[in-house]
Amino acid sequence: MRAIGIDFGGTSVKLGLCDGEEVVEKMPRIPTADYGSRDDLIDAIVEQIETLKTKYPDLVGVGAGVPGNVDYPSGRIHELTNVNDWVNVPFRDILEQKTGLVAALDNDANCMAYAEWRVGAGKGSDHLLAITMGTGVGGGLVIDGKFCRGSASVAAEVGQMSLDYSGRVGVYGNKGCTEKYIGNAQVEEMAMNLYKQRHFKNGGPMPNAEMCDPKALAEAAHQGDPVAIEVWGKVAEFLATTLCNVCWLINPDRIVIGGGLAGAGELLFSPLRAHMKDQLSNTHYQSMKIVAAKFGNDAGMIGAAMEAADRWKEQQG
Amino acid sequence: MRAIGIDFGGTSVKLGLCDGEEVVEKMPRIPTADYGSRDDLIDAIVEQIETLKTKYPDLVGVGAGVPGNVDYPSGRIHELTNVNDWVNVPFRDILEQKTGLVAALDNDANCMAYAEWRVGAGKGSDHLLAITMGTGVGGGLVIDGKFCRGSASVAAEVGQMSLDYSGRVGVYGNKGCTEKYIGNAQVEEMAMNLYKQRHFKNGGPMPNAEMCDPKALAEAAHQGDPVAIEVWGKVAEFLATTLCNVCWLINPDRIVIGGGLAGAGELLFSPLRAHMKDQLSNTHYQSMKIVAAKFGNDAGMIGAAMEAADRWKEQQG
Repeated sequence: MRAIGIDFGGTSVKLGLCDGEEVVEKMPRIPTADYGSRDDLIDAIVEQIETLKTKYPDLVGVGAGVPGNVDYPSGRIHELTNVNDWVNVPFRDILEQKTGLVAALDNDANCMAYAEWRVGAGKGSDHLLAITMGTGVGGGLVIDGKFCRGSASVAAEVGQMSLDYSGRVGVYGNKGCTEKYIGNAQVEEMAMNLYKQRHFKNGGPMPNAEMCDPKALAEAAHQGDPVAIEVWGKVAEFLATTLCNVCWLINPDRIVIGGGLAGAGELLFSPLRAHMKDQLSNTHYQSMKIVAAKFGNDAGMIGAAMEAADRWKEQQG
Repeated sequence: MRAIGIDFGGTSVKLGLCDGEEVVEKMPRIPTADYGSRDDLIDAIVEQIETLKTKYPDLVGVGAGVPGNVDYPSGRIHELTNVNDWVNVPFRDILEQKTGLVAALDNDANCMAYAEWRVGAGKGSDHLLAITMGTGVGGGLVIDGKFCRGSASVAAEVGQMSLDYSGRVGVYGNKGCTEKYIGNAQVEEMAMNLYKQRHFKNGGPMPNAEMCDPKALAEAAHQGDPVAIEVWGKVAEFLATTLCNVCWLINPDRIVIGGGLAGAGELLFSPLRAHMKDQLSNTHYQSMKIVAAKFGNDAGMIGAAMEAADRWKEQQG
């Protein structure tokens, strides 16, 4: 079943025509900075939707994943992170009225998790957490076979969870905020500091930013670089605390991990599993599998389209 | 609708005939130590059930809350804490076969939460956490209007959640284990240490165990005793970290707090709310209320009976 997915980012909006897990066609990016007003940006989005509708007349809906809080039941955007002028916007209704399609609206991390659950690495799971590790850490939840958004559509904010009651402070004043330990910038800083220590102790090159980016750190760890291995071990230790908290609370059967940092694969997953095994009951640990996400950058688009297709199906009864 | 509730404790088993939130009649306690074998103990329980069946022929079921892990779908006890010889016991089937009643089996903390959700302080909530604070901290969850036990029936283990990735170690090797900060014994120890400091600094009585028990600490705080007020403030700070983690993850609309320590009421709840407000997003904080549990020691019995009554209703179609 075909539907359009909209991946609404901080700097650009990407649209694609999706068929299940497949992205059939991607439209040119729409840079948000090129549009002076919200209405102009909406017009540009609708124009691309119309183009896709003409080309694929059998498509059933359009779904959007947005970087910020939404009220899921009403399809309103509360506010977007890093995009001005999008406060309290009934975006789902706007899309439906302007295109005549069934529309869906969700938080971008939820869309990623939805894609993994329905057609990705979380397929078949009834108790799932899917997270994406990048600048921040976002996630989505499935409980008892149903996608779970919480009482005010703000569940699964895994990156805000605390791993230290007196630790580093997040944007909400939240002490020990997970993102402040394992966000991209924090991992790069950790690597930079460790490489500097090595430089001053043992000589060798003064570290630069390129050596500290997640891809380079994964590569270096594969080559046996002790600093890079130590960095992944620390990331695993921090992440384990937060994921153990998830396990104690909701006892998932699967945890899907995606995003840039997850590109490290077993360098991260292997110490992560060891830390979690050490700190969970046998029942909690054995009931759960940790797996790599199936989708990369297209996850949000695929999930948004899938949410629209599922809404269309529901409305058909 | 009347059903029997069984509150299976570490030292005794208590049975009562319940009608919704009311305990109509309590039977004499059955001390577990008086029975040499599991079968003898089961016979004693069944005998009390038969007595109640004779007296209340309209009762529809029997529910049991047990201190340990159960497999909810099959109604088996995996293992009981502090009660020997109860490993891998199909207790729900045994109860049904021996009594002819519809039976239910659940973890005791879940039974408490079930009672609060169905007829207590959590009534009407679709996204609920109910916890009980005592020797340890146990809990139960409702997600999207459905009681949530997780993939292996071990969800809602709030007391095991970490509030410090390098903190005090719990029974599963879990660092920063919440219970190790706010369990009864830990709170008493905290009070003892603070009272001792005061004694050595400012004179006054050397503290004793009675001054440090939760009831005495609540009383002393109400009288303005600065040590007792500090203790409740610290308990609130620790508990806030763990409850904020719950809010970030599942975004509940209500948190019900019961058990001995909750007897402190606003002495605990007021600083708890302040800490949570400081560390949550507005949406997360405002979507949620913290309330005191309605039921005391009978919560488990009431909830177990209610689970049996609900199972009976389901089976009627």
